[in-house]
This record gives sequence, C-alpha cells and structure tokens, in this order.
Amino acid sequence: MAEAVRHDKTARQLRLLSDALDTGRLGPVRRLVNTLSPAEIGNLLESLPAAKRGIVWGLVDPEDDGEVLVHVGDDVREFLLAEMDPDEIVAAVEDLDIDDLAELAEDLPDTVIDEVLKSMDRENRERLEQVLSYGEDTAGRLMNPDVITVRTDVTVDVVLRYLRLRGEIPEHTDHLFVVSRRHQYLGRVAISSLLIHGAATPINELIDDEQPAIPVDTPSHDVASQFSDHDWISAPVVDENNILLGRITIDDVVDIIREHAAHQALGAAGLDEDEDLFSPVPRAARRRAIWLGINLATAFLASWVIGRFADTLEQLVALAVLMPIVASMGGVAGTQTLTLMVRGMALGQVGSGNLRALFSKEVMVGFLNGLAWALVVGSVSALWFSDAMLGVVIAAAMMINLVTAALAGVGVPLLLRRVNIDPALAGGVVLTTVTDVMGFFSFLGLATLVLLG
Amino acid sequence: MAEAVRHDKTARQLRLLSDALDTGRLGPVRRLVNTLSPAEIGNLLESLPAAKRGIVWGLVDPEDDGEVLVHVGDDVREFLLAEMDPDEIVAAVEDLDIDDLAELAEDLPDTVIDEVLKSMDRENRERLEQVLSYGEDTAGRLMNPDVITVRTDVTVDVVLRYLRLRGEIPEHTDHLFVVSRRHQYLGRVAISSLLIHGAATPINELIDDEQPAIPVDTPSHDVASQFSDHDWISAPVVDENNILLGRITIDDVVDIIREHAAHQALGAAGLDEDEDLFSPVPRAARRRAIWLGINLATAFLASWVIGRFADTLEQLVALAVLMPIVASMGGVAGTQTLTLMVRGMALGQVGSGNLRALFSKEVMVGFLNGLAWALVVGSVSALWFSDAMLGVVIAAAMMINLVTAALAGVGVPLLLRRVNIDPALAGGVVLTTVTDVMGFFSFLGLATLVLLG
Repeated sequence: MAEAVRHDKTARQLRLLSDALDTGRLGPVRRLVNTLSPAEIGNLLESLPAAKRGIVWGLVDPEDDGEVLVHVGDDVREFLLAEMDPDEIVAAVEDLDIDDLAELAEDLPDTVIDEVLKSMDRENRERLEQVLSYGEDTAGRLMNPDVITVRTDVTVDVVLRYLRLRGEIPEHTDHLFVVSRRHQYLGRVAISSLLIHGAATPINELIDDEQPAIPVDTPSHDVASQFSDHDWISAPVVDENNILLGRITIDDVVDIIREHAAHQALGAAGLDEDEDLFSPVPRAARRRAIWLGINLATAFLASWVIGRFADTLEQLVALAVLMPIVASMGGVAGTQTLTLMVRGMALGQVGSGNLRALFSKEVMVGFLNGLAWALVVGSVSALWFSDAMLGVVIAAAMMINLVTAALAGVGVPLLLRRVNIDPALAGGVVLTTVTDVMGFFSFLGLATLVLLG
Repeated sequence: MAEAVRHDKTARQLRLLSDALDTGRLGPVRRLVNTLSPAEIGNLLESLPAAKRGIVWGLVDPEDDGEVLVHVGDDVREFLLAEMDPDEIVAAVEDLDIDDLAELAEDLPDTVIDEVLKSMDRENRERLEQVLSYGEDTAGRLMNPDVITVRTDVTVDVVLRYLRLRGEIPEHTDHLFVVSRRHQYLGRVAISSLLIHGAATPINELIDDEQPAIPVDTPSHDVASQFSDHDWISAPVVDENNILLGRITIDDVVDIIREHAAHQALGAAGLDEDEDLFSPVPRAARRRAIWLGINLATAFLASWVIGRFADTLEQLVALAVLMPIVASMGGVAGTQTLTLMVRGMALGQVGSGNLRALFSKEVMVGFLNGLAWALVVGSVSALWFSDAMLGVVIAAAMMINLVTAALAGVGVPLLLRRVNIDPALAGGVVLTTVTDVMGFFSFLGLATLVLLG
C-alpha cells in the first residue's frame, strides 16, 4: 500500500477543473462537473478554495444537489447550504432516501425541515420522524425503513409475482426479509435463491434464520464490525420486540469505516474529522488554538521540571545540549506502543484477558531498545564532551525513559478509557508529557546526583 | 464517533475465552470458538499471546482453517502456518476461492503451493496462475475469476433456466455480466431486474452499459475509491482488449480500506500495518529499533544546533529551561498542517490546482496562532524570569517557528511525494526535525543577538 497516498483520478479532475475555471468560461466547467458521480463532485468541491467552490456548486445539476450534500463533510456542507435558498434546499433534499435525509437533517434550518416534512406523504414523514428519534451513531440512524418483506406461508412464485407488481427493488437488496403476521423478523431469503429454485418452492424452505438481526440501539462501530466479520451486503434492524424496522446497507457501513479512520488520523492531531481543507482562516486558527493551548500547558510543565535543575545546568551546559535527546527518544518509543494499543483497543483485541502479557511484552521491548540505544547515545555523548560519566548518566536516563515509555504506552490509553476520554484523541499528548517530564527529570536528576554529587 | 474505540463484543469474547483457557478444560473453549465466524476467530487469535494462540488454533474446526488464515495479518498468519503440517495446510486452503488463495499464496511454502496446484482441476489451476501473474495491490490480484456471464441475444427466461441449471450463484453477485462471443465486456444486468421483468424480455433491454469496467492493472486504492464513489457491490475486471477476466466484490474493498487506514495509523509511528500485537520480543524490538535510530539521528542534529549556542546557554540558563517550549509548539502546529495535507493527498484533494491557496491559508493560520500564543508564552516567560526582553525574544521565536511549521507542514509532504517517499510514513519525522531545529535556532540565535549582543 506504499503508493496508496495518490489518487490520480481525482487529482486529474481537480487540475482539469481548475484550468477550466481559470479560463473564465463556465460552459466547459459545467459539462465536466456533470459527468461525475455525486460522490466525485463532493470530493472535488471539498478540494476547492471558497470562491471557486461557490462557482462550481452553482453549476452542479440541481438533480444531484441532494446526493452531493450527503457526500461532503459537515463543514463543507454548511458552506454549500449557506449558498442556497430555502426553496432550493427543499427541492434538493426532498427526494433523498430516508437514511440520507436523516443524516442531513441536523444541518438543515428548521424551516427547511418543516417544509420537507410537509412535502412528504404521511408514511414517509412517520418513517423519517422515527429514524430521527434514535440516537446519533446507532443502527437506528443508519437504517432505511424501505424494505421488502415476505411471509413464510407463500411460494417462490407468489413472491416473484409480488416483486413484478412492485416493479422496483431498492438498491443493494441482496435479501428479502421474512416476517410474521405481527411484523416480527423471522429470517432472510437471498434473492439469488429465488432465481435458482422452482416456482412452487415454499419460501420457508429457503429461509436463512441463522443470521441475527441488529438491535436498533447498536452503536454504529459495532454495526460496522459485524458487517465486516460476516461479509454482509445488507442486514435487518429490529426493535426490542424483534419487530423489523428497516435495513442497513454496506454503502453506509463503508462511510462509517472511512469516518472512523478519519477520526483516528485527524483526531490525534487535535483536528475535527470533518475539518474542511479550506475552512476560513479565523475558524481554522481558533479550532487549532485549543490543541496548541493544551500542548503549551504540558510544555510549561516540562520547563518547570527543567527549571528545578537550573543550578545543575549552569554548571554543566552539556546537559542542556543533550537533554532533548532523552525526551525525544522516550516520546517516539512510547508513541509506538501507544499506537499499537489504540489500534488493538479499537479492534477489541485488548482486554483483561491479555493485559498482563501485553504489559510484559512491551516492557521487554522497551528494555531491549533502551539497552541498545543507551549504548549508542552514551558512547557518542561521552566522546563528544570527553566525559565518560556524562555518557553513563545519559545511558541510564535513556534506559529509564524507554521503560517508562513502554509502561505509559500501555497504561495511558487504559486510564483514559477508564475516565471515558478517547485515547485516539488525547493519548499522544498525555504520553509525550509523561516521557518529556521523565526524560528531563531522570537525566538532570541523575546528573545532579552523579556528576555534581 | 467518540466511542468508536470500544468494540465490546470482541472484548467480551476474549474475556470468556481467556477464562475458559485458564480453567484448562478445552471442551468449552472449542465450543466457544466454533460458534464464531472465521473473521471473528481471526480477530480473537490476533489478541492472544503465543502460547494461548497455539492452543486455540488447534481447537478451530479444520473446515474454517483456510478462511481464518485469510482474515489475519501477515505476522499472525506466519505464526499459524508454522503450527501446521504441510498436509493440514493443503487441506485448509485447497477449497478457498481463487482470490483468497492468491492472497495467501505468497505466505505459503513452495511445496504446499505445488501440492495445492496439483489438487486443483485444470481450469482453476490456470485461473490461480493468472491471478498470481498480476502485480500486488492491483485489480488483477483482487479479482475472482468465477463470474456468471450471459449473452445479449437471449431472453430473461433463458438466463433463468441457465441459472437454475447452474444451481449456485457466487456470493455477492448483484449483477450478471454481459459479454460478446469473444468474451468482451458489454455491460451488466442487475439480478433484481431478472426478478421484476417478464420471461420474454430480451436481455439487451436490461443491460446497463454505462458503468465502465475496471482495467486489470488499476491500483487497488483506485479500485477502492471507485467502489465508494459509485456505491458498487461488485465490478467487472477487464484486460487491455476489454476481455472480461473476473470481478471484484465489496468485501475485498472493505479490507483494502481497513488496511489503508491501518497503514496510515501504524505507519506514522514506524510500525508495520501487519504488526502482531504479540510478536516475539526480539523481533518487535528489532523492527522498532530502526525507527528509533532514525529519530536519534534527527535528535542529535537538534542537539548539535543547541551546542552551537553553548556560550549563550552558559550565560543565561533560563534559555535552557524555555527552549523546549518553542520546539514543541512548532511540532504540534506543524503536525496539524501535515495531517490535513496527508489526508488531502490520500483523497486526491491536493494538487497544482489548489496548492497556492492552501499554502497561503495555512501560513495565515500559523501566523494567527503564532501571534496569539507568542503573547501568552512571552508574558509568562517575562514574568517567570522577571526579564521583559526574554519575553520578547521567546515571543518572536514562537512566531518564526509557527510560520515555519505551516510552511513545512505543506511543503514536506509535497517534497517527499516528489522523491517517492510515502508522506504518511516519513512526514512526521522530517517535519519535527525542521521545527525542532528551527525552534532551537531561532530562540537561541535571537537570544544571542538581543540579550547578549
């Protein structure tokens, strides 16, 4: 996957589009944009600075407006909605699927939502209200209530006649769901099995009743792992009485997986997963300032520790020169352990069953690398400053800090989770605070004892 | 997604399993393991230390062995294969789908591959050899040659009779592919459309010929973005003459997306994406040592810069106390820009069309945050050491370093990509080297000029 950082197709579209925009002739831009799928248009809009983004958005076929809004991040969506009249918004979103509409709903002005609800028939209005009544990031919010259900007591022929009458099958339908008279979920029938079995085959011979349905309050990350554990294309969603409420399809699950990856990648740098590449400067500066402020507090803590050893530093300036090395190596080693832990925790692979084994493995790794690099750093430092004891001191401090880093790499994410803070977000800051403070303290402390003692 | 770090189901299975293992009675462990899907078993095996992993692997139903091997990372796969006889391996893998077998092939001993090839019929042997002839991380390696094709000149009825005769439809088949007499790809027919159209309908009325097929040499990350841009479940793969070779299904694409996320998350800490949570200590230590060594070289570079100012530090120890703050804030601010850039580049959202706009936005953000935090750091430092000029110097150094950080955050990933190094892997190290060196240099340099000048 070393080359996975490039995505030549979008980059090429972006260049073509920018060139076309620069000529000022909008006809070709419009034609170019409207050859793309809504997801591709969304991706392009996300890569344009505000002025060009506004122009291109005006050129998108109004038919596609709704789907494009679904496919962009929160910040960009807000920008695009601000460019539209309430009437345009209503027209854009009223034909969306219920699950897509539910996803947009929180970003829409109340007047628009009222308008959209009014334009819907009663059944769809109730469905939308039902979906919106479930918590964010649960199965209930992801599901689409538009499902095809059949009863057990019919034959393949009856089902086929029903489907022909219906005339349309929702996208990503790989199974029909079998329900009881009271609409309780009983099992599923693969639509491919309808093709290969004779017309007289009773449906109850084709039912797969092994796959459990998804309870409506299941967190969305659990939904995603069930989909990938079982290679599902779609899955039924039920309430606490096993009444079938709707179904979730793989395309929404792919979005969850992507969002989760963005959350992990951007969150670790204190960025929002919906951060707009071209968010307005004051807004971007304000958001990032918080993270810088937290970091500043921890940096002052480390400085305060150094300040305790001002006398020592005054007598031996080599300590000031070398001290960042001890802190930095601890930070890198600790981050390696932390990264492995955060990933293991996200996959559910870390728990009381294997914690002790994990702790001792990481401490051993830290010890071995501490030993190896302590020798190198100690030798180089002793030669550089012609001071053998200085080499011994920095080597010992390195050992201490790399073992501390391993302990903190395992311990910090566990503690954070205990207090309900996401380790993917805060883990790095807390960890490097520990390794900085321990790095400076062990090195300057040992130096005070040994070199000036 | 704040709670996405938990994955309670697997963690619960892990605990149950560990408890059962601790009792020493293997009957309950076996029963527990064999209620799980192969992907879940793989996940559990990945979370177990070596000794327990070996025991549990021995209890897995041999029927599932092959699928489990497909679902674990490279390192764990190597461990599991080492526990098996060649005969067991052959039995485990010979019934896998061609695409899964191709994925395992590079990890299998040559004797096993020969054995497996011998056990296959000629058609499957040729298919496997063909798939293996394509480059890693291309569409050719992801595809399964087992596809259902139909011709244009038939009716729905003929297709249905053919399917009934065939008796089985490969998993995740949402479309049949229409080919010419020479097996050239012409379009696709949704299997749901076979259900809702009359038996006499000619297939050529149901063809969707708008969706392009995927060329066999398309990089896998491009395959993944095409799937998510178009919400595909499956897509045809063709050679340069438009001959249909096979199809790619969404489950493999989900794996690519997950692997890419792992690559980004683990790679930034110098870890392999297939890193085993319980890899043997010497091996884990050796792998991580390389990253620590690279970091050590950059840390010595920063120390060398500090060493140039030894005289200044000797005269004013407050500089040693404060200097890590300037370096650290630059590192954090630069990492924020870098993270946004790496993600934008992975999505194809950064290119010549918007680079100038991106540069100026990031520099403005760096300037604003530099200004704000320079005021804070300057004031605190001036008060702490009762030295107004010291406050001015550190404030100026902060400004310089935060603007440098913004420039480096945009520039470093672009430069790395130019020289074909993945910015997701190396970006962080290079960036913090720049901000450390510039942080120490600007602060100590200004102090030398202003305070001792």
